[in-house]
Amino acid sequence: MNNTATTPLHQSLGHQSEHPFDLATALQPLPDGRFAAATHPAWANMVGPFGGITAAVLLKAVTQHHDLLGEPISLTVNFCAAVADGAFEVQAIPARTNRSTQHWTIALTQNGETVATGTAVTAVRRSTWSDDECTMPLVSGPELYARAQGPARVEWVRRYQMNPVVGFVPSVWDGAASASSLSQVWLRHAEPHAVDVCALAALSDVFFPRIWLRRATLVPIGTVSLTVYFHATGRELAALADASTSANPWVFGQARAQCLRDGFFDQSAQIWSQSGRMLATSTQTVYFKE
Amino acid sequence: MNNTATTPLHQSLGHQSEHPFDLATALQPLPDGRFAAATHPAWANMVGPFGGITAAVLLKAVTQHHDLLGEPISLTVNFCAAVADGAFEVQAIPARTNRSTQHWTIALTQNGETVATGTAVTAVRRSTWSDDECTMPLVSGPELYARAQGPARVEWVRRYQMNPVVGFVPSVWDGAASASSLSQVWLRHAEPHAVDVCALAALSDVFFPRIWLRRATLVPIGTVSLTVYFHATGRELAALADASTSANPWVFGQARAQCLRDGFFDQSAQIWSQSGRMLATSTQTVYFKE
Repeated sequence: MNNTATTPLHQSLGHQSEHPFDLATALQPLPDGRFAAATHPAWANMVGPFGGITAAVLLKAVTQHHDLLGEPISLTVNFCAAVADGAFEVQAIPARTNRSTQHWTIALTQNGETVATGTAVTAVRRSTWSDDECTMPLVSGPELYARAQGPARVEWVRRYQMNPVVGFVPSVWDGAASASSLSQVWLRHAEPHAVDVCALAALSDVFFPRIWLRRATLVPIGTVSLTVYFHATGRELAALADASTSANPWVFGQARAQCLRDGFFDQSAQIWSQSGRMLATSTQTVYFKE
Repeated sequence: MNNTATTPLHQSLGHQSEHPFDLATALQPLPDGRFAAATHPAWANMVGPFGGITAAVLLKAVTQHHDLLGEPISLTVNFCAAVADGAFEVQAIPARTNRSTQHWTIALTQNGETVATGTAVTAVRRSTWSDDECTMPLVSGPELYARAQGPARVEWVRRYQMNPVVGFVPSVWDGAASASSLSQVWLRHAEPHAVDVCALAALSDVFFPRIWLRRATLVPIGTVSLTVYFHATGRELAALADASTSANPWVFGQARAQCLRDGFFDQSAQIWSQSGRMLATSTQTVYFKE
């Protein structure tokens, strides 16, 4: 099966690109102000699609909205249930528009049921005093680390090239507890694609569940809520691709859990450009069993 | 002026306690399912009330809802505009109820305008493998650090006793840039109060703006979005007060910025019990001028 092929549903959505990211986030305006969209097999997870692609499609409903003011500053997505394969609708509502900031509420529905909820803030950015306080760890370039050939049990993992530096998925599930959940990994799209703000939202969710690293046990998990803060402008993100001969920029990601307890753990993550510029910080809380 | 006194608005809300936290978060059910509430002068900030008390009242609309399932796992609050002094309404809607998790959308309105939006997840917690990966820094007990007597320009600061360990508000606003925004501080309510889940939501917002520490310049700021993950059960939180002879538990807070750029900075924070148990982790993005 060619998972990146256009499906009839995606043909009807009138997409402009054959790239699996663009296919899975294609939105068709509906007369009532909502958008029609559909899951794409290229992003299949264990149950339903990869959470990152769902976050991306929710954010895209904001960035494609005709009333949009500014650029995304923050995004929170709550995963209420697994998205079923097939069509869904996304509604983004500007709940409050100020002079330079705008507050959005977002909902993803299927057959009238709420499957994901979200909020976002967009704003007109202005040049100010600036500093990346959390600097990128000193690591070698992405080419000096081998591409992970881990157990690709799920399709979406094939959408990214992951060159781990430390803390990738355990190669042996022997239940040997590790003291640290720290992961550092070079990341880029497997099929070349710009790191735009929606792609960045998806990249914030690529880190394997911290509980797997800590326990080396494949316990069932599911992200419950994800929050991403965007630190780069659209112009800065566009320049990442310009600076790369391949038009497929690498980013460097880092993730770590702070607390794992009673069926939920958190994960805080950072994403930098290859040259060490902070692009996004994120946090998520994840359900786990046992 | 006695800022903790009951106001006529709060008398009409039928509150059960004279504590300023309970007064400011008192909710009166309305026939349409919303709650009526009102700002309280004890929590006044530069413009409008302290964001932490607004977060607490949004969460309380969830925890007081007759359809509540479980306990709070996560809360996101987006501050759309300053809350005006006086009455407001809060609506919490269970957008999706699963077997053991529940997803909430929340809105705070004044005169029909959206002033804050939010989402929350509540869940039935189950005992699992657990670990506090992010351990509390090694510091002495709260009594060994002096209570901060900083410039209390705003009323809400008087609601907390803050014994800073490192990185409190600059004592001189001389514009001398600091390389680190790290703050560590012992915290408790100035008027004894339990650290329940709503109080914990408010405590997540007590850290002074990181930009002030970095620049030693009092630039205008405003929190745009706040996300809190709760790691302790209600029972654990109740036990904090039981273990204290004063029934006024100390907590230890830590906060740091990761990126400050183009008018927005983020802050990630952790709160532990006095005995070093992780209670909550949070993140926020904050607007700043210049």
